[in-house]
Amino acid sequence: MTTLSVFMDVPLAQKLEGSLLKTYKQDSCPNKIFLAFRVCQTSKGQPWVSSVVPKIRLQIAQDPSLNYEYLPVNGMRSFTEAALKLLFGKHNQVIVENRVGGVHIVGDNGAFQLGAQFLKIWRKDSQIVYIISSKKEPYGLVFQDMGFTVREYSFWDSKQLCMDANVLLNVAEQAPHDCIFVIGNICDCNLTQSQWAMLMANLKVSPTSAQLPSLMPSIISSINLILFPFSFLLQNKRIFLFFDISNQGLSTGDLEKDTGFLQYFVSQGFEFFCSQSLSKNFGIYDEGVGILVVVALNNELLLCVLSQLMKLTQALWLNPPTTGARIITSILCNPALQEEWKQSLKGLVENIMLIKEKVKEKLRLLGTPGSWDHITDQNGSHSYLGLNIQQVEYLIKKKHIYLPKNSRINFTCINAHNIDYITQSINEAVLSTKGLD
Amino acid sequence: MTTLSVFMDVPLAQKLEGSLLKTYKQDSCPNKIFLAFRVCQTSKGQPWVSSVVPKIRLQIAQDPSLNYEYLPVNGMRSFTEAALKLLFGKHNQVIVENRVGGVHIVGDNGAFQLGAQFLKIWRKDSQIVYIISSKKEPYGLVFQDMGFTVREYSFWDSKQLCMDANVLLNVAEQAPHDCIFVIGNICDCNLTQSQWAMLMANLKVSPTSAQLPSLMPSIISSINLILFPFSFLLQNKRIFLFFDISNQGLSTGDLEKDTGFLQYFVSQGFEFFCSQSLSKNFGIYDEGVGILVVVALNNELLLCVLSQLMKLTQALWLNPPTTGARIITSILCNPALQEEWKQSLKGLVENIMLIKEKVKEKLRLLGTPGSWDHITDQNGSHSYLGLNIQQVEYLIKKKHIYLPKNSRINFTCINAHNIDYITQSINEAVLSTKGLD
Repeated sequence: MTTLSVFMDVPLAQKLEGSLLKTYKQDSCPNKIFLAFRVCQTSKGQPWVSSVVPKIRLQIAQDPSLNYEYLPVNGMRSFTEAALKLLFGKHNQVIVENRVGGVHIVGDNGAFQLGAQFLKIWRKDSQIVYIISSKKEPYGLVFQDMGFTVREYSFWDSKQLCMDANVLLNVAEQAPHDCIFVIGNICDCNLTQSQWAMLMANLKVSPTSAQLPSLMPSIISSINLILFPFSFLLQNKRIFLFFDISNQGLSTGDLEKDTGFLQYFVSQGFEFFCSQSLSKNFGIYDEGVGILVVVALNNELLLCVLSQLMKLTQALWLNPPTTGARIITSILCNPALQEEWKQSLKGLVENIMLIKEKVKEKLRLLGTPGSWDHITDQNGSHSYLGLNIQQVEYLIKKKHIYLPKNSRINFTCINAHNIDYITQSINEAVLSTKGLD
Repeated sequence: MTTLSVFMDVPLAQKLEGSLLKTYKQDSCPNKIFLAFRVCQTSKGQPWVSSVVPKIRLQIAQDPSLNYEYLPVNGMRSFTEAALKLLFGKHNQVIVENRVGGVHIVGDNGAFQLGAQFLKIWRKDSQIVYIISSKKEPYGLVFQDMGFTVREYSFWDSKQLCMDANVLLNVAEQAPHDCIFVIGNICDCNLTQSQWAMLMANLKVSPTSAQLPSLMPSIISSINLILFPFSFLLQNKRIFLFFDISNQGLSTGDLEKDTGFLQYFVSQGFEFFCSQSLSKNFGIYDEGVGILVVVALNNELLLCVLSQLMKLTQALWLNPPTTGARIITSILCNPALQEEWKQSLKGLVENIMLIKEKVKEKLRLLGTPGSWDHITDQNGSHSYLGLNIQQVEYLIKKKHIYLPKNSRINFTCINAHNIDYITQSINEAVLSTKGLD
């Protein structure tokens, strides 16, 4: 046998992420802290799991009547239906009009993989994808690998230390025709309620600017003049919307509030895709369960799109796995369990708010220069600390506190044991780099 | 908002499979029988589940120490390691030499999706894929969708009613350079032990035919003269091997015997991919759990290939789901549980043999023309009944017994309640079409 390998031309691929975690793991300092875990942590540093999940897991394992046959290609129907009702509300027009559907997908990237494949085939003119920078990895890479050009945008204004609600409008103005917008998720956009209201109010502005003053005048007057309303821009440029909802309930603790902006696009009659991931808000991260949601103008169009997605799914993984979907369906289809789940979400979000308040208060007591209101102004577990690159490097190198360069941390990694060390270190970092900007 | 849909050019996709099941479901006859289910059935018509699985499921659900964090991109390491040991044997040279590895994949098609993507990028000259006809759907479609030309082959000789061990040799002779061979799975190839021995003996023949007579002369003499040994052909034509092992233990009831042919390629120093699916032999179909196995010439090459696969996996689904892998790992890493699992496999295979014996005996008692030895000559749940197209159509239309055109049925769909009706119907079908060939 020849010793020439068939793999001889294959080079070692560069790792795309995880280098921060790797450096953290290699650090031998006993005080080291990692503030960039993907999932919410409990006060004991364990991944958060909704209290209702272990009970359901046990119930499922004890049920002798369950069938473990392959699921159909489109997945568990009861799961898709329950998840769509959760996303849009039972009586939403897209549900009533039978023009929303979903494909049960696999993993956190599954919906983007499937959706991008569809768009590659059926929207050949779409070459450019705009995606929020915090999601460039991994979601943007899915598009990039398929030949799309990926451009980033960010709501976070690192100078003003706040979320800029006009980003989507600005991006839409500059974007070429036929591009794709990945919007979300709620925690990433992280706009305050009033910022969303502003954005939506703008959206509602009709092309005839004469109607402008009658719509929420106090809000309208507080923003820059927008020459073209957002929805008009989107339609005119044939921009395709691809939402990412992976944290429903984890932003404000209120399931409906968190998808409020989606409702707006529904009411405006938009067609879109949405990656609905349900791993994080149930705490079943390791099952990577979700749905690629399709909203179409009517049922006939919807069935065509779903049938093409089915064909792609068949090649991708053939049958999706059941466990995650079974757990979620059991909870969503039982009002008492659903209520218990909602309460657990509220508890988690209240705890996140509490941690943020404490961090802010401790920094205030330490006399750390600057206002730290931006910490509590942001919703959700992952928020910007508002540090610059020198301050981040100070924390990593001098204090063994690991966080991303943009200082967007997971606040649930902060607990009673480490909050003093973290806030004192932030204080040191800010003082040590004062005047360096 | 304009009423022109962004989806207006998307047509309804044709369904690729399931039309037989659909017709069966629409049939209102109370005696209707479906003989083409994908998975093994119990005598009560339920999907077979290894007796050890429900216990482990319960144990997992009751374990408070388990972590439900996302799995890394390459999946659960303990699962991959346990599965590779199962496939090759603990002390196999590829394991000892650290040149076999695996990526934890999703769904029955996942390994082919991932492997095909890799081959598309790193073996650009490979345009043609040979695949066993019973697996053209769904595995062949994965390659086809990616632009490969898919050609079918079949071990089943419908004239002689037997498996033709020389098929792979014949295909290799006709195949162009740089093509891909999808070989397996064990039940599909369904060669008898002596046929495998014959094939392997040929494989062992060195290019100098002088050595031929010294190798198992009784077997060699019984086969046609093969001008070029198989392994020489494979190397010379740079044919890439992609095995499909989705039924280990379900062919003969013996885990090692079922992968005997894989060992041969290992011993000959071949590099290859293998889709190892573990859903069917544990009875956890709905988790679609498996591995894309990579065998390379050395560890360095292996790491390069795995790193590239990791990159693709990241875009495909990012993190594989845990439940199936956790169940299997718990069983494989516990000797007592592993033994219980092996016994359950043996029991299942013995039952399949018993059903086949009964069918043959009943046909003999009915005096059905022809020899029905081919039924018991074949291993595994899915075997050819050996009926022609007219006989199959007779069974479907007159007797409401649904089976594929090639008469390859799932014998575990036959049980005490339906065996008489089925065998009498086969007898009728054969008699009614006698002389029509």
